[in-house]
Amino acid sequence: MSKGLTKRSEDYSAWYNELVKKADLAEHSPIKGCMIIKPYGYSIWEKMQAELDRMFKATGHSNAYFPIFIPKSYLSKEAKHVEGFAKECAVVTHYRLKNAEDGSGVIVDPDAKLDEELIVRPTSETVIWNTYKSWIQSYRDLPILLNQWANVVRWEMRTRLFLRTTEFLWQEGHTAHATRQEAIQETEQMLDVYADFAERCMALPVIKGIKTPNERFAGAEETYCIEALMQDGKALQAGTSHFLGQNFAQAFDVKFATKEGGLEYVWGTSWGVSTRLMGALIMAHSDDNGLVLPPKLAPIQVVIVPIYRTDEELERVSQKVQEIKKDLEALNISVKYDDRDTYKPGFKFADWELKGVPVRLALGARDLENNSIEVVRRDIERGEEGAKQIVSIDEVAGMVPALLDEIQTNIYQKALQYRRDNITTANSYEDFKRILDEKGGFVSAHWDGTPETEDKIKEETKATIRCIPLGNELEDGTCIYSGKPSTQRVLFARAY
Amino acid sequence: MSKGLTKRSEDYSAWYNELVKKADLAEHSPIKGCMIIKPYGYSIWEKMQAELDRMFKATGHSNAYFPIFIPKSYLSKEAKHVEGFAKECAVVTHYRLKNAEDGSGVIVDPDAKLDEELIVRPTSETVIWNTYKSWIQSYRDLPILLNQWANVVRWEMRTRLFLRTTEFLWQEGHTAHATRQEAIQETEQMLDVYADFAERCMALPVIKGIKTPNERFAGAEETYCIEALMQDGKALQAGTSHFLGQNFAQAFDVKFATKEGGLEYVWGTSWGVSTRLMGALIMAHSDDNGLVLPPKLAPIQVVIVPIYRTDEELERVSQKVQEIKKDLEALNISVKYDDRDTYKPGFKFADWELKGVPVRLALGARDLENNSIEVVRRDIERGEEGAKQIVSIDEVAGMVPALLDEIQTNIYQKALQYRRDNITTANSYEDFKRILDEKGGFVSAHWDGTPETEDKIKEETKATIRCIPLGNELEDGTCIYSGKPSTQRVLFARAY
Repeated sequence: MSKGLTKRSEDYSAWYNELVKKADLAEHSPIKGCMIIKPYGYSIWEKMQAELDRMFKATGHSNAYFPIFIPKSYLSKEAKHVEGFAKECAVVTHYRLKNAEDGSGVIVDPDAKLDEELIVRPTSETVIWNTYKSWIQSYRDLPILLNQWANVVRWEMRTRLFLRTTEFLWQEGHTAHATRQEAIQETEQMLDVYADFAERCMALPVIKGIKTPNERFAGAEETYCIEALMQDGKALQAGTSHFLGQNFAQAFDVKFATKEGGLEYVWGTSWGVSTRLMGALIMAHSDDNGLVLPPKLAPIQVVIVPIYRTDEELERVSQKVQEIKKDLEALNISVKYDDRDTYKPGFKFADWELKGVPVRLALGARDLENNSIEVVRRDIERGEEGAKQIVSIDEVAGMVPALLDEIQTNIYQKALQYRRDNITTANSYEDFKRILDEKGGFVSAHWDGTPETEDKIKEETKATIRCIPLGNELEDGTCIYSGKPSTQRVLFARAY
Repeated sequence: MSKGLTKRSEDYSAWYNELVKKADLAEHSPIKGCMIIKPYGYSIWEKMQAELDRMFKATGHSNAYFPIFIPKSYLSKEAKHVEGFAKECAVVTHYRLKNAEDGSGVIVDPDAKLDEELIVRPTSETVIWNTYKSWIQSYRDLPILLNQWANVVRWEMRTRLFLRTTEFLWQEGHTAHATRQEAIQETEQMLDVYADFAERCMALPVIKGIKTPNERFAGAEETYCIEALMQDGKALQAGTSHFLGQNFAQAFDVKFATKEGGLEYVWGTSWGVSTRLMGALIMAHSDDNGLVLPPKLAPIQVVIVPIYRTDEELERVSQKVQEIKKDLEALNISVKYDDRDTYKPGFKFADWELKGVPVRLALGARDLENNSIEVVRRDIERGEEGAKQIVSIDEVAGMVPALLDEIQTNIYQKALQYRRDNITTANSYEDFKRILDEKGGFVSAHWDGTPETEDKIKEETKATIRCIPLGNELEDGTCIYSGKPSTQRVLFARAY
């Protein structure tokens, strides 16, 4: 199955595209830019959703659902939002089809033209703040802590499965608060939730930081983000949390009566992660043999492959496998017994390797006599020390939980070590460009704080400021580009 | 809070509309026909989703995700599908906005016109069967058992919250099989899943049956359904399961190599339930004081209201409440302690009654001395026998699980009794019309089996054939309308 997977070192981009398809995660649809998420890929996304949803609820949020359509005029209401936000949107202009007179099929009924065009939501701030206007009168109505799981559409010209698609799935939190302070706390809290989720579940180390005005969400006062590093040295923004100030409250006239009897605009936040996380997960950990999934997100945590020549042998092996499977399931571990008779063990090994199953057990008739079983972990490459071990059948189920934990930790530590090795300090523009071209990764450099310099650097090197890390150390220096004074280093990178 | 809720007997329709809004379930959005599902309403839907999803997976299905957009030409491919399916669809014609030159906001960019219009999915058979073509080559690729949780859009002129909205949320199962027999089994299995869910979780008795050709899904060979009865005597179709035959396989040229070496078209099914179930749930059980929720779907199963005059009393009561709450939560019961200091107990009672919380506990300072607590169940109307009881504080937590079960059963039994009382046999057209007008409910009557007669009856009485019940008894008779011979009775009703 892994046959034909391009090596990362040869063509990282081709490797990624092939892997997504061969591992049955997703594929392109005939609808330009829209993807089909296949069952195996979707089951990983479901695991992400479940844990995120649990974390949102544990921090006091509820889910709700708002319309997919946004009246065109709403997008004009928040000036910065309309100015800065991409205008590549799907526009609904008609609401009826009819049979073509020549019998050739259906055509759009010209009589069914909408008075005002509707936009398929690219994000829901406008429709939600328009609703909050009627929900919020007094400080007693605050805070409102809502989240929505939804599909959104942003028309993209160049798309890549999971990373950039015209339609994608995401969650968008939208909260309303009585004070600036409380809204900022919420923004920071949700950034922490995202970072915790990325590191604990996805085994993906992230840097928490603040975006520069250039990279800020249109309509936000401050955009917080988590930034991760992929194996090709490019950065990937994995989640954002926006402090909206009173911008949307002003645009939609959402005021509340304060405890003290005044009337003030409401403070807002919004925050989201999307199926893009699937792309980050794949690119951060996988290798030339296929996916590497952290156990916490693996739909199948353990696969068991029987080795046999005769039906009688298969029966004996299967009997023992069913016992092991039962023991593992009692420990809340998801197990797949691959007893397909149409494929040989070698094919199955490669297949499950490609699909990133963290632990593979192989049991043969001779193993039964020796009371032993082969345990292979996916996170250590084939042939490397520790990848394979032989253990007692009696002990195998009991050792798997600790092994899964160890794999989870190891995947995280590998990614963390890689990131540590790929944050490089640059003190001159020459150094900066050389590092970007030769090594990649994050480049920590002084910047004069102006959008103009940022634009120039982007234009010349394709690198952007990924973030100003939270708790960044202040340090006097000079901007690598303009030579002007600077008070801190920021993190640049080429990014997805 | 329940103040102002119209009585069911006065205006059932107004009662429903008010209840949905006052109980914080949903509201209309400014986008015509689209609803906003509020957190409390959405949390009921989430409980439905969780249980249905569990049942789908237990029957071997996986979730996946297909694009929201369908190329217009796809809808023309299956002749019956395009003929019979409503053409009220949202049509995307453009993919970009731009700033208006006069600075007044955004306009649709005329240069960004799509070559082929895209339809926002009203259902996904076409896009999914187009995909199955590339997924299915051999009998080894079958069956495919997929489900998708998604939003769909059908442009509706007259909408009602949950019951009929332009955008709604649903799940749609789409399966592919090697034999006719297997596909029919799947269709029937999913009907059973729906019926089991409705009766066990929603406490909603349903009749399983088959639709007449008039009411069949466009593109199906056979449509199975579950039909429920609302308190106003109108029927409501709560779920459908379609045997598609080879229709979509033929339309999208999906063939498979059989074990025997032949090449055959694939057999299909599709099945779905939607947020319409929320409407059924509300209308089947609720009363003039508000919602009545079956405990299995209640986001809050037990609410506790403190009765106190002083802060000191509140503190003593709260301490005991926290103990009870902890005990209940240990039993996996969801509990809300309503210690809002801005409202009086009477207001809170009415509020939680309106919201349908199955069990209300009220604890006062004097109760503490008596070691007693008031337990009120929502399913028995205020003042009726059994609605209220006083029990020992020590025993209250322990008795709640059985009480919740009893409430679940009682709600179901009430609905079942109501339905039994409202299936009436009619042997003449005069009887038939009188029953419809005076009593409503299902009318069991002979029909000659022709679409023409069905159409006439619908035209004259607004009643449709809801279904031919599964396992229907054969019985010679004459059609109430045409007088022609008939072999069985079918169920008519006016319906939502």
